[in-house]
Amino acid sequence: MKAKFPYYAVIFTSRRTEEQAGYAETSARMMELAARQPGYLGVDHAREEVGITVSYWESLEAIAGWKAQADHALAQRNGREKWYSEYRIRICRVEKEYGFNREGSAE
Amino acid sequence: MKAKFPYYAVIFTSRRTEEQAGYAETSARMMELAARQPGYLGVDHAREEVGITVSYWESLEAIAGWKAQADHALAQRNGREKWYSEYRIRICRVEKEYGFNREGSAE
Repeated sequence: MKAKFPYYAVIFTSRRTEEQAGYAETSARMMELAARQPGYLGVDHAREEVGITVSYWESLEAIAGWKAQADHALAQRNGREKWYSEYRIRICRVEKEYGFNREGSAE
Repeated sequence: MKAKFPYYAVIFTSRRTEEQAGYAETSARMMELAARQPGYLGVDHAREEVGITVSYWESLEAIAGWKAQADHALAQRNGREKWYSEYRIRICRVEKEYGFNREGSAE
């Protein structure tokens, strides 16, 4: 993922309920839909005790567009009613970024 | 975690190598040390294919302080030399936050 600064990250942390019928299908579908939204840059996801999904976006408008997307809005409602015992969403402006990989070198 | 705006998030995403000797102990120790740093607010962590650790801080100065902390600097070096095949660090300003939990209601 190569993004121009500034760009934005949405940190979604969640804990799940016992009721998980329909969750996996919806989650996979939302990943597909998000990737087709204007301004989408990428996503990172992992779950252990807590689930963390970080999605990356070109602008706050792109984030608002994804929040309002119809299928996603329905998934959010199902999330609150069934799948999540709690979640937290943090909308962040990425100020600085650096990294390391074994093929290249530290930045 | 109740934080005053603005506050900051460090999104650390990583992939690990086969070599993991000493990793778990160092990781646990870093979590303890971070929690004692000035300006530390909290942390979320999960690992599947990719590891995601998001730590929360009162200021950019607090983040710089943690990066420079001596034991942590040594852990970072070991991370690059042994444990990680790649990592990425994003320093973010949290602009907005909301959430839901089953005991209360959506914010």
